Amino acid sequence: MTDDLPNRLREVLDGRWAPLRQAARDKLDDRFVTVPGETGEQARERISRLVRQIPAEVGVTSGFPAEFGGAGDPGGSIVATETLAQVDLSLMVKAGVQWGLFGGAVFSLGTRRHHEAWLPGIVAGDVMGCFAMTETGHGSDVQRLRTTAVYDPGTQSFDLHTPYEAARKDYIGNAARDGRMAVVFAQLIVGERRHGVHAFLVPIRDDGGRPLPGVTIGDAGAKAGLLGVDNGRISFDHVRVDRDMLLDRYGQVAPDGTYTSSIENDTRRFFTMLGTLVRGRVSVGGAASAAAKNALTIAVRYGETRRQFTAPDSDREVVLNDYLAHRRKLLTAVARSYAYTFAQELLVRDLAGALTGGEAEDRRQRELETRAAGLKALQTQNATRTIQMCREACGGAGYLAENRLPGLKADTDVFTTFEGDNTVLLQLVGKGLLTGYRDAFGSLDGWGRAAFAAEQVREMVLERTAARTLIARLVDAVPKRGDASVGLTERGWHLSMFEEREKHLLEGAVRRLRRGAETKRDRPFDIFNDVQDHVLEAAQAHVHRIVLEAFTAGIEETTDAEAKALLGKVCDLYALSTIEADKGWFLEHERLTPARAKAVTGAVNDLLDELRPHMTTLVGGFGVPDVWLNAAILREEADRQAAM
Amino acid sequence: MTDDLPNRLREVLDGRWAPLRQAARDKLDDRFVTVPGETGEQARERISRLVRQIPAEVGVTSGFPAEFGGAGDPGGSIVATETLAQVDLSLMVKAGVQWGLFGGAVFSLGTRRHHEAWLPGIVAGDVMGCFAMTETGHGSDVQRLRTTAVYDPGTQSFDLHTPYEAARKDYIGNAARDGRMAVVFAQLIVGERRHGVHAFLVPIRDDGGRPLPGVTIGDAGAKAGLLGVDNGRISFDHVRVDRDMLLDRYGQVAPDGTYTSSIENDTRRFFTMLGTLVRGRVSVGGAASAAAKNALTIAVRYGETRRQFTAPDSDREVVLNDYLAHRRKLLTAVARSYAYTFAQELLVRDLAGALTGGEAEDRRQRELETRAAGLKALQTQNATRTIQMCREACGGAGYLAENRLPGLKADTDVFTTFEGDNTVLLQLVGKGLLTGYRDAFGSLDGWGRAAFAAEQVREMVLERTAARTLIARLVDAVPKRGDASVGLTERGWHLSMFEEREKHLLEGAVRRLRRGAETKRDRPFDIFNDVQDHVLEAAQAHVHRIVLEAFTAGIEETTDAEAKALLGKVCDLYALSTIEADKGWFLEHERLTPARAKAVTGAVNDLLDELRPHMTTLVGGFGVPDVWLNAAILREEADRQAAM
Repeated sequence: MTDDLPNRLREVLDGRWAPLRQAARDKLDDRFVTVPGETGEQARERISRLVRQIPAEVGVTSGFPAEFGGAGDPGGSIVATETLAQVDLSLMVKAGVQWGLFGGAVFSLGTRRHHEAWLPGIVAGDVMGCFAMTETGHGSDVQRLRTTAVYDPGTQSFDLHTPYEAARKDYIGNAARDGRMAVVFAQLIVGERRHGVHAFLVPIRDDGGRPLPGVTIGDAGAKAGLLGVDNGRISFDHVRVDRDMLLDRYGQVAPDGTYTSSIENDTRRFFTMLGTLVRGRVSVGGAASAAAKNALTIAVRYGETRRQFTAPDSDREVVLNDYLAHRRKLLTAVARSYAYTFAQELLVRDLAGALTGGEAEDRRQRELETRAAGLKALQTQNATRTIQMCREACGGAGYLAENRLPGLKADTDVFTTFEGDNTVLLQLVGKGLLTGYRDAFGSLDGWGRAAFAAEQVREMVLERTAARTLIARLVDAVPKRGDASVGLTERGWHLSMFEEREKHLLEGAVRRLRRGAETKRDRPFDIFNDVQDHVLEAAQAHVHRIVLEAFTAGIEETTDAEAKALLGKVCDLYALSTIEADKGWFLEHERLTPARAKAVTGAVNDLLDELRPHMTTLVGGFGVPDVWLNAAILREEADRQAAM
Repeated sequence: MTDDLPNRLREVLDGRWAPLRQAARDKLDDRFVTVPGETGEQARERISRLVRQIPAEVGVTSGFPAEFGGAGDPGGSIVATETLAQVDLSLMVKAGVQWGLFGGAVFSLGTRRHHEAWLPGIVAGDVMGCFAMTETGHGSDVQRLRTTAVYDPGTQSFDLHTPYEAARKDYIGNAARDGRMAVVFAQLIVGERRHGVHAFLVPIRDDGGRPLPGVTIGDAGAKAGLLGVDNGRISFDHVRVDRDMLLDRYGQVAPDGTYTSSIENDTRRFFTMLGTLVRGRVSVGGAASAAAKNALTIAVRYGETRRQFTAPDSDREVVLNDYLAHRRKLLTAVARSYAYTFAQELLVRDLAGALTGGEAEDRRQRELETRAAGLKALQTQNATRTIQMCREACGGAGYLAENRLPGLKADTDVFTTFEGDNTVLLQLVGKGLLTGYRDAFGSLDGWGRAAFAAEQVREMVLERTAARTLIARLVDAVPKRGDASVGLTERGWHLSMFEEREKHLLEGAVRRLRRGAETKRDRPFDIFNDVQDHVLEAAQAHVHRIVLEAFTAGIEETTDAEAKALLGKVCDLYALSTIEADKGWFLEHERLTPARAKAVTGAVNDLLDELRPHMTTLVGGFGVPDVWLNAAILREEADRQAAM
């Protein structure tokens, strides 16, 4: 092992946007890092100030066109979110609300006149704004939200109104303190005709920061984390909104009230509008994985110096990382972290390609939305578990705010909920798979509505998302059901195990849905609900498969031989520990014999031994600067070593 | 179902200490409940004030003898901790430090003169104190802690000293603000002779609250949770401690320095001293489960009213609890909660019996310590997962402090670490099982020391901890390996599955340890470490088994027929969902066929359907008063229903 291997791994992980990642490491110094033990007020004040001071090189606004102050690089803005997440998650969310959700909605849903009038101020941070979609009574079912915007041709304005408390906008970032404007989602009504949910650009505060007439703003109050983000509640009492403040890219209202749209179906139009906002999900998934890397770096480095018990071998210093159980937790999580990094990079590349390459074909767009939903769900779920595990792995020290882990845990905790509840998103993935992406965006729940009929499902042909030729060659190289004779570290075997699981789960779901459609005609809710656990499992299996494909493709692209060899071992660990974790399924479906299942556990333990000397190298590859880790236990350790 | 079934379930769960639990419900009113969004200073001030106002009827001091202000009821003091945990976890921990750890140590490790001099003030809350064991550099390996107490016959006092920073006392509750005294654990040295760790009662602050000369007290600073507890760091610079302040029940120092003890071996003496403190672990395990009940009550009641998507069945109101995936998470957790309640009740009864019935025989004492360690580990692990799941099940609302879940999560998070790290405790359980409790208390790590030789292990005979005759009859009633022909809800089948898993895991560990002892003679650390994951799995299987036995015994004791029938279903769900979660093991070891494994999943889903109408009844049975739940979403719901 050579000394700069962590750097070379970092170069591989940094991927296409390496210069942007390096710029963030250079520019985001200790002024920007978290301050443990702040009050909510202190955190809001600090973050509100800092969000305007983020250096341009970090790239948070790079997704906007150059003419409005951006760089025309939407992938870069997602990568910027990932780096900010490692510095301070409140700062990341605050920036995400301002430029991702609010600015992104004005850009994606508005037209030229909105862009010219508002984007320069938004990009510069002079016009702070909110993304007011979620309502108290409607979290996941945003298509049914209850705020209304009734057009009045007489005044050429919309009457924006919150009809009752459950329709108030809730959990809205930037609302409680800083937002001057909001993109408000409301049911558009013209005369007797309802046109579904549309977005309106609405001023909510005057220059002095006071709510405008008719606008009531409340504070969501204390939260588990993200103390620096001013979440609030907004309601409207017949607020007049000028006609030209409708963000009218997908639906237009003429002065006389005539409604026009290039998309006839209300549902389809709404989900097209939502689709343009897929970046938010990609950002949240990436940010979750980025935060998990901080936690793993802290826990692995602490475990490399911390002793628990004196070892009986007098000539040996035993540290936490030497314990098998400790390594099992940390190293398998490190392997997942590597795997998600490659999957996220590929997703950002593909999304950036679709966003800058003009209108993508419908099917391609659906696949991207499905992948974004699935990777958001699994990355945030994994981050929640990983950070929790790292907290516990650091014992009492992990409970102190000065060691960062409590903040990482509390701040990321809501990531499994916002930008789409994970269960709802995995249902979306399941539906996308079952319908071959034909109707995946028909509704957000995917179930419970008659719109989805079981007859729509078809025989499954899995689509490979990465390095199709390579993956096909690897899979074809192993005999089908090639138990026993096939080496446990054959990548082709891993890939075919992941594929078979997904395919079998999907086919089983189809069979059960068809049977249900025949026997439960009068209970449409039950048709889907009775299969819900099965579909969620299939969706997860799908994401596991595309992650392994992306990891495999990423290793193939790696040119540094030493890095490539180590990544191969890490990928083995990812694949085998994933198979081990779900060995119940593989045994139940006779894809593993009992003897081979035990051999998988043995192989995982062997890999944990082989990778033991590389633990700090691997977290070094994450490339998180010490100042971003901001953990007292690591500083103390550095002091001790310097003093020796 | 009759309307008062929740009350009748509550009576069953309340168990032997029902009057104490009811007194707490009556006396702990809204003055005592959590205040969301407090700063650390506000929380400390409030808790410091309230801890002295806890009504005597709640029973926090009932473990002390009546002559010193207690009630001679150690079981009652544990139950009091459980009820306080549902009111405010900072208050629970603050009380636990004062009366459980600090007062408990003075009582258990001191002698008559200490009791008379100090217990009245401690019980009354006039003398606030700390339990100063953990050091920065020594969390789990307390036998090796580095603070020294050197006896000087000339002054008839001990010189208490912190030799370097890693030896400072750390994470000590009551230290940063309120503690006037501390029970300090230090290495006793007389002349050239070291006598191992002993406890000293040491004044640390004067009446004005200033640290005494030679005592340096720091603040542990902001923590993830437990904001109301003033954790701190204490170091001693040659502080003189009078000879009679040695808590000398197990080891005495005469004026001339002569050391005497009824227990010759230093290690054995120290672990006997620790053994008297087993109550702390039992309290933490019970408190964790109690807090999880709050979370489950909030999530289940919220899920009973919250709608997500409009159902396609127009005649039907679909709420969150109707979704299969939602129910799977919540109801299996409710079933575990019931299971742990019975296991905890039995543990408290047995412990109370041992504490009030004179010196228990050594083997019996070891079994209790092992059971306390195992139940602490699994209950705290389960609470962490359950509260996290409930947070997510409540979506964005679950992230707001006003809905309690963030506080429950943050406050209980350290329970997996304090009073013994869970991994270390499960190793202790494993060792106790492997040695038949003969030497389980030989060292805290259980591994890594030559003291434990693989030759000590023997063939396994599982000891049943509850209702031995009943369990034996149930197990004998099912054919061995009685696949397929045996009903999936036969309790005897569940019990024998749990038993076989434990037995097989233990026997496998023995085999591997013996083989390791032959081949790795020069690497004693590896002998144990290579089997660590296996031993931890065996320990968990053991705890699962004794929990199921306790649940079975508890149902047998239940006289109310309707409650008994419902509990039987809940126990089915506990047993089958536990088997399902570990089906990989059962399939790998051919205790389940693939067909029967699938049938287990089907049976779990059937039970989720059967128990659907009883979800709110079951959490009603937990008996947590609304004022203790202290969740805005439930109050709003109550307001809505009242307005209808």
